[in-house]
Amino acid sequence: MIRAAVVGAAGYIGGELLRLLVGHPQVELVNAVSRTLRGRPVDSVHPNLRGRTRLTFSSYDQLVRSDVLFLATPHRETMRRMPEYLASARVVIDLSGDFRLPDTDVYQDYYGTPHEAPGLLGTFVQGIPELHRERLRTADRISVPGCMATAGILSLVPLARDGLIRGDITVDARTGSSGSGAKAGSENLHAERSGALRVFAPTRHRHEAEIAQATGHTVRMTATGVEAVRGVQLLCRAPLAEGVDERAVRSTYRTAYADEPFVRIVAARRGMHRFPDAKILSGSNFCDVGFALDRGASTVTVIAALDNLVKGGAGNAVQCMNVRFGEPEALGLEFTGLHPN
Amino acid sequence: MIRAAVVGAAGYIGGELLRLLVGHPQVELVNAVSRTLRGRPVDSVHPNLRGRTRLTFSSYDQLVRSDVLFLATPHRETMRRMPEYLASARVVIDLSGDFRLPDTDVYQDYYGTPHEAPGLLGTFVQGIPELHRERLRTADRISVPGCMATAGILSLVPLARDGLIRGDITVDARTGSSGSGAKAGSENLHAERSGALRVFAPTRHRHEAEIAQATGHTVRMTATGVEAVRGVQLLCRAPLAEGVDERAVRSTYRTAYADEPFVRIVAARRGMHRFPDAKILSGSNFCDVGFALDRGASTVTVIAALDNLVKGGAGNAVQCMNVRFGEPEALGLEFTGLHPN
Amino acid sequence: MIRAAVVGAAGYIGGELLRLLVGHPQVELVNAVSRTLRGRPVDSVHPNLRGRTRLTFSSYDQLVRSDVLFLATPHRETMRRMPEYLASARVVIDLSGDFRLPDTDVYQDYYGTPHEAPGLLGTFVQGIPELHRERLRTADRISVPGCMATAGILSLVPLARDGLIRGDITVDARTGSSGSGAKAGSENLHAERSGALRVFAPTRHRHEAEIAQATGHTVRMTATGVEAVRGVQLLCRAPLAEGVDERAVRSTYRTAYADEPFVRIVAARRGMHRFPDAKILSGSNFCDVGFALDRGASTVTVIAALDNLVKGGAGNAVQCMNVRFGEPEALGLEFTGLHPN
Amino acid sequence: MIRAAVVGAAGYIGGELLRLLVGHPQVELVNAVSRTLRGRPVDSVHPNLRGRTRLTFSSYDQLVRSDVLFLATPHRETMRRMPEYLASARVVIDLSGDFRLPDTDVYQDYYGTPHEAPGLLGTFVQGIPELHRERLRTADRISVPGCMATAGILSLVPLARDGLIRGDITVDARTGSSGSGAKAGSENLHAERSGALRVFAPTRHRHEAEIAQATGHTVRMTATGVEAVRGVQLLCRAPLAEGVDERAVRSTYRTAYADEPFVRIVAARRGMHRFPDAKILSGSNFCDVGFALDRGASTVTVIAALDNLVKGGAGNAVQCMNVRFGEPEALGLEFTGLHPN
Repeated sequence: MIRAAVVGAAGYIGGELLRLLVGHPQVELVNAVSRTLRGRPVDSVHPNLRGRTRLTFSSYDQLVRSDVLFLATPHRETMRRMPEYLASARVVIDLSGDFRLPDTDVYQDYYGTPHEAPGLLGTFVQGIPELHRERLRTADRISVPGCMATAGILSLVPLARDGLIRGDITVDARTGSSGSGAKAGSENLHAERSGALRVFAPTRHRHEAEIAQATGHTVRMTATGVEAVRGVQLLCRAPLAEGVDERAVRSTYRTAYADEPFVRIVAARRGMHRFPDAKILSGSNFCDVGFALDRGASTVTVIAALDNLVKGGAGNAVQCMNVRFGEPEALGLEFTGLHPN
Repeated sequence: MIRAAVVGAAGYIGGELLRLLVGHPQVELVNAVSRTLRGRPVDSVHPNLRGRTRLTFSSYDQLVRSDVLFLATPHRETMRRMPEYLASARVVIDLSGDFRLPDTDVYQDYYGTPHEAPGLLGTFVQGIPELHRERLRTADRISVPGCMATAGILSLVPLARDGLIRGDITVDARTGSSGSGAKAGSENLHAERSGALRVFAPTRHRHEAEIAQATGHTVRMTATGVEAVRGVQLLCRAPLAEGVDERAVRSTYRTAYADEPFVRIVAARRGMHRFPDAKILSGSNFCDVGFALDRGASTVTVIAALDNLVKGGAGNAVQCMNVRFGEPEALGLEFTGLHPN
Repeated sequence: MIRAAVVGAAGYIGGELLRLLVGHPQVELVNAVSRTLRGRPVDSVHPNLRGRTRLTFSSYDQLVRSDVLFLATPHRETMRRMPEYLASARVVIDLSGDFRLPDTDVYQDYYGTPHEAPGLLGTFVQGIPELHRERLRTADRISVPGCMATAGILSLVPLARDGLIRGDITVDARTGSSGSGAKAGSENLHAERSGALRVFAPTRHRHEAEIAQATGHTVRMTATGVEAVRGVQLLCRAPLAEGVDERAVRSTYRTAYADEPFVRIVAARRGMHRFPDAKILSGSNFCDVGFALDRGASTVTVIAALDNLVKGGAGNAVQCMNVRFGEPEALGLEFTGLHPN
Repeated sequence: MIRAAVVGAAGYIGGELLRLLVGHPQVELVNAVSRTLRGRPVDSVHPNLRGRTRLTFSSYDQLVRSDVLFLATPHRETMRRMPEYLASARVVIDLSGDFRLPDTDVYQDYYGTPHEAPGLLGTFVQGIPELHRERLRTADRISVPGCMATAGILSLVPLARDGLIRGDITVDARTGSSGSGAKAGSENLHAERSGALRVFAPTRHRHEAEIAQATGHTVRMTATGVEAVRGVQLLCRAPLAEGVDERAVRSTYRTAYADEPFVRIVAARRGMHRFPDAKILSGSNFCDVGFALDRGASTVTVIAALDNLVKGGAGNAVQCMNVRFGEPEALGLEFTGLHPN
């Protein structure tokens, strides 16, 4: 059994980690740390866990040594406490933003604050099994990308790597309200957020930097909050290299993802389910990727969708844990999603 | 022109008052008071008013004398400040809960705190033109009922008054999230509230007391938050008196509301719009009332719907103002609602 | 392995059966029958199954012999074809309405058509493991109740059985749009149904008869379509017998459901998750049951919630299959539901 | 009084025309034509009109001569019947797609069928008062653009006209479900459409051609159905010409729209209402336009939002009528929209 602990367990990503770890047949969940809720049952905050666990929240100083420690904690705070986290577990899987960008200048540019643990930056492996599986098998420090970044990286990297796209990429990202977290402010009240199409980051969203870094292209990303609790969908556009056609794009994706358990190519000719839609992905660990070419094949439009709390966060982290500890990669992540939903 | 002022103008009811008063051809809006937003344009908080008004928020001490003062303020605070409000305007229309229940014991029972201005209690006329139009024509102090209470009163009082029902009434009230106001807590975050069916008051909701008082019957009310921003729908059940049939019920409603501009009887035999539904009432001042009898005519099920911020609040208050100042009763309240919506 | 087949596999209940059976470790899914889609991949209709099954739809005449046959078929058609269904499988689990009401007069009264297979009526065991587990262990014909009926039966029968309630019961049922099925008409278009509070059955909903039969009380039920795809919530009211208090109600529920894997008592003193809410149950097989007493303990308000396609249909049917075939009762039904969702 | 008639009055655009015309102080609505509903009250289909009109639907052959005829009819059918429509009214305002594209080749390319009335094509004036007010004052044939096209044209034409943008434009259009009309198919059932992020036109949406024609730029547009009944939001990106900065963009918009009653520039530095959002526009005739520049000012991101049934259809048509008949341009279009909503 893998002894696992979660810090930041009262939040939405934290709760999703608890859900997946409680249901994981090879995991013993030893700690659910919350700054403020010590002693309260975790199911009082995460009611879906009623009847599934009797665990109560711990405080930081009750953190016991574990095999794997998941950090669902705010940026800045995470890098400050990282030394003690590293001391308390064999493997640390960080879901904060602090170790996603290897360049301290880029970090400062996007986060507006200097990086406070630059010496640790290079020691983290990016938590994307589809790209870094071999390194993850032995990694003791894993940094899981942002929810929109994961969708962008999985959908764009194969095209960039194979040289199918040239020039700048634009990304229109749409996201549900759970991405704002359990402590969101009044702009996330239901009355304000319901049915909204809120362009909250017209330029310079932090996840933009992660996609740029992974693809090697300039990325211009806009983020819009849409009516959904869970779910991220990206609509990306990139100019195609000379001579690239639909067949080449499809072939690149097939080669990249033929054996991947959690990436599906979704690009049908017709029907209401032609392209990736987060609506059917809630609770699942899939990232669905689709595409369409302009007439003339000058541009490819890439569509990617995932559940921001699962493949965009907790599920991806558990997948990394499975890889790291030699478990079947899909263990505990079998839920298929619902239709209709 | 009627010079009007609003206290509590940054909230949802306050904003709706501004919307209606800015569009009212016989009103000059002289003050929009907010405790915290002095000097900020009202359209920074109520973006639907962009291009319609250049008004900025005032502080309390900038309150000028007006013909009519609308109070969209919290209970307790309202009764404490009532003397100064009464001194600042010819007519005060209060939308708080403080002057809705004439009996101080009932007030204390439902609000959990003693009434602090018992001497003023009897001086307010209930702001329901359909029941008290004549008294409202000369009333200087008007207390507008709660949103769910208005729906319950308008749909149940005719039956009670005509002796068609006997015994206890049950009310299943469903309400949108705007009823919780612009300062609602984390339980009203979109991620928590979206799609919820939250029984937040299984018994003893405050509006229950208002319906009981108006009908003279014992009322058992349950309130559930449903997925909607605006809108209240009540499903009421009452035992019918001996010999009452569908025709009698219909006749009672017709008699009561034949000439009313804002109450519509909606009880069709078929179709998707058979009964009142708040979905098509957003922004309108209608209260739709429908009904169905059990086989055997032992029980009547009464359905009522309205927009909680309009007929359940600001619109009803403006209708009272029109009555009080001798304006056409529907002036400024002509919006019909949207379909589909 | 249990060889399973589904008739009516293109619908919403059918699709949910496929989801659960494909993921069930002891089931081999041998047939997914659809009248019109023969040869098409099931994941073209149920996109959540992409990557999980390569099954294609069969026509009726391709139905092979199986251990268990699930019927997600329309009423009337089901009773007409029942003899052939019974001949094609060892165990038939019927999710249609045709064998839910043992009395042919009651059937005719609620379905508006005579029962055409009265001789078979008494041969079906009601598919509610919580009430009929022992009989289900050997039952070859199982009739799964309606979604709202299941919620009503599970929440009301313990009180009725223990004599805690007296007199008539009222039920306000709220239901999501998936209950109308994949072939619903224009009244279920998104533009019409979104945000609706549609009282589509003010009286005499068919599930009313099932609850009445199970409890032995007169039931008055109203059904309202609310904004949700999945989910049913019932708000029931019943007069309490003399001397019954909150402790007695709680004790009755505890005794009834202490060892049940899929019924949870949810009745907290405070918090946003006090009472059952279908919002967190999507995809799970739970029926959550809560209650509150009026001051004076004259009436109990019972609240029940479930996912209409799971515990209200396909999940309950799979649970019955598990009981019948001696599998662990929760096998394949472990999904906990999501929060937030 | 302007005598007005509507053909296609049972649809969503038709219903919106009825709502606006019934409430218009200078209009007498003489005909509401529906192919199938002759004799039925219009409020049986458009329940928001209850109590506001007693009009019943007419058949085509009951079409009387009017001052202005609004066509909310399907493309193809519209151009075939256009000669008789032109004969029946002084002014025809067409909301179908048939007379939006002056070039028959472009029409055939986007509509997949040859134009059948090429001789009439050049006789229609584009129904955008902000661009063609003077011509509209005397126009007897007006073609109102598509909903997404209107948003694209109003937000992009000023920049194109003033030479601020160079090169190709991309448009990410998001639309609510009412755009699919009252006769939409099963892909628009609530269970399928609710919460969807459905890329239904990855390339070559018809409205793309209208924006290209108006701006003179190549346009690549993608259309996604989002969770909303009403509302369109466009996110457009275009490369900026050398030396163009934020001030220049703002100045261009200010000059273009300073005196326009229905276009608002919405581009704030902060707050939850920074950019145009259709959420607060339901029922209003506004098109809100905002923008943001990339660091380095290489690209402008333009955001536009409107209610597809109002400024994107019926409201815009009524505005054209007001211009044509010399009425105050905003008459009957005063509704501000709701917040929250």
